[in-house]
Amino acid sequence: MNTFAVGVDLGGTMIKAALVERGQGIRELVSIDTLAEEGPEPVIDRIAGLVRRLASAASADSILGIGIGAPGAVNWERTSVSRAPNLPGWDVINLQTALQSRLGAAFPVIVENDANVAGLGSAHYGAGLPFDSFILVTLGTGVGGAIIYQNTIFRGATGGAGEIGHMTIDYEGPFDRSGVAGAIEAYLGQRFLSRHARYQLLNRPDSVIHKMTGGDLEKITPKMLHEAALAGDAAVQSVLAWAGHKLGCILGSAINLLDIRKVIVGGGVSAAGDYILKPAYDSMVRFVMPGLRDGLEIIREHLGNEVGMLGAAHLVFEYHDGHVSASS
Amino acid sequence: MNTFAVGVDLGGTMIKAALVERGQGIRELVSIDTLAEEGPEPVIDRIAGLVRRLASAASADSILGIGIGAPGAVNWERTSVSRAPNLPGWDVINLQTALQSRLGAAFPVIVENDANVAGLGSAHYGAGLPFDSFILVTLGTGVGGAIIYQNTIFRGATGGAGEIGHMTIDYEGPFDRSGVAGAIEAYLGQRFLSRHARYQLLNRPDSVIHKMTGGDLEKITPKMLHEAALAGDAAVQSVLAWAGHKLGCILGSAINLLDIRKVIVGGGVSAAGDYILKPAYDSMVRFVMPGLRDGLEIIREHLGNEVGMLGAAHLVFEYHDGHVSASS
Repeated sequence: MNTFAVGVDLGGTMIKAALVERGQGIRELVSIDTLAEEGPEPVIDRIAGLVRRLASAASADSILGIGIGAPGAVNWERTSVSRAPNLPGWDVINLQTALQSRLGAAFPVIVENDANVAGLGSAHYGAGLPFDSFILVTLGTGVGGAIIYQNTIFRGATGGAGEIGHMTIDYEGPFDRSGVAGAIEAYLGQRFLSRHARYQLLNRPDSVIHKMTGGDLEKITPKMLHEAALAGDAAVQSVLAWAGHKLGCILGSAINLLDIRKVIVGGGVSAAGDYILKPAYDSMVRFVMPGLRDGLEIIREHLGNEVGMLGAAHLVFEYHDGHVSASS
Repeated sequence: MNTFAVGVDLGGTMIKAALVERGQGIRELVSIDTLAEEGPEPVIDRIAGLVRRLASAASADSILGIGIGAPGAVNWERTSVSRAPNLPGWDVINLQTALQSRLGAAFPVIVENDANVAGLGSAHYGAGLPFDSFILVTLGTGVGGAIIYQNTIFRGATGGAGEIGHMTIDYEGPFDRSGVAGAIEAYLGQRFLSRHARYQLLNRPDSVIHKMTGGDLEKITPKMLHEAALAGDAAVQSVLAWAGHKLGCILGSAINLLDIRKVIVGGGVSAAGDYILKPAYDSMVRFVMPGLRDGLEIIREHLGNEVGMLGAAHLVFEYHDGHVSASS
């Protein structure tokens, strides 16, 4: 019998859920607006609704359980979400209990941080497949991260490991959203990168970005930067290289600490591809101590958002194998 | 029957070896000058000699094996040392084979990086005893580090993890011995700290350091700095606080990545105690993202050099328990 699990990607805007067949990938995908402003209970109802739709599509008794990737902090037991950004009212929500009471206790429910499930998805279905261990960086609104070690999530002492976005490269640098000076998110987070681009490009009338934004540089998006770079815009290319160099510095630090030499980069900003990743590689090498430089690589994740759902489902397969602790 | 192992601390100046009783500590300790300039073979002979002396003191068949903490890089199989600083000619030395051929193959021989064995020793015999997981920092000639995770060494992908001394806090900062800009070693390594103190104290005629060095600030040592600070020297206290703040920045970054919230500090420079560690704590908290700040602690290792021998011996106990992979 084939084995299935449901992987849920709980985001501030959309909830996506997929029926995942072990080792094969997504068999069916459903999604719905989060409508986060209505508070936790209706959102949990919507998650349960998506799961029911997928369960009726599959033969329900072939579903091993439900994995959920959620923003914010997840407890060690993988049951609860707290401090979820973009989900108003989610101070501490036991998502496991809440879903099991809605769905009957038939399904084990396992919750994990969204960057961590993206890492797990990459490890078992994406760019991480060839590697036992890698560092995942997601470049989006913020800069997320995960450590995949020996094919599973390195969780640290309480489940919060992997926050590479809040590591510093300049102790007197600009503050990120958490108030950490010189954190890499304060350079590559979407808002920060756009602002930096604005200042850099203001005095570059040769840049196509002025035309793309209709003259209003407040409208710069990472996507525009990528398009301008592709079109050969030297000014924009240098902005992306600046960002890449910053990313490389922090990757060097992380590699010195972890001796994990493969880096996988995903998230919206990573669309800018080599314009960021090539300079990132160049500066990463300089920041890794010589003894640890063999085999360094930065690879772009080719899967999109589905990597989170795949990883969330994989939590269930891991649990089923008895490889991870989680109450059910 | 009691269980014993021999723990060896291979240093550039001295080789120390201890007969360690499991869970009890050091039963007997011997040491000899390394005379590293004579090259690897005579040094390995000296290690074998120390082991023989300890083995004849104990009943030899109660010795489970030999653990060795060595400077430089150790391979994943824990057999070989390479790039050992202060050991001329040690490019790649298979210490396991070399010792087994000298001692007969009776003893399993396990090699590990010196900072890592210090971490393991701290975990099972020292300040790390109360914690499952902690970050070890050794402040000496260089700045070493180890990650102890769930009571054992986190080794990374190839065995080289824990190099916190080469993580950067300023991508445009001063270079450390490995050529990494703004690495914490470039602030707290013994030579770097002494030099910084020299410049800072040059224009502070009120500092007792001028008297302690006989007017030659080239003679500043970390020990002097500690004594001057203890004597109430405000100028020296501010130098140590400067160093402590730098240390705190990098600890913050490491904690964000690892979610390991206990830090144990050992090594010669840590003698300066709270003059460094209190400012380190204050700045560490600012560099840890708010969600990971509960339970942060910096603790000084109360064991001295023996922590390395204890940890080296503990490698053997771990191996004997089947908890770690190592060929024998």
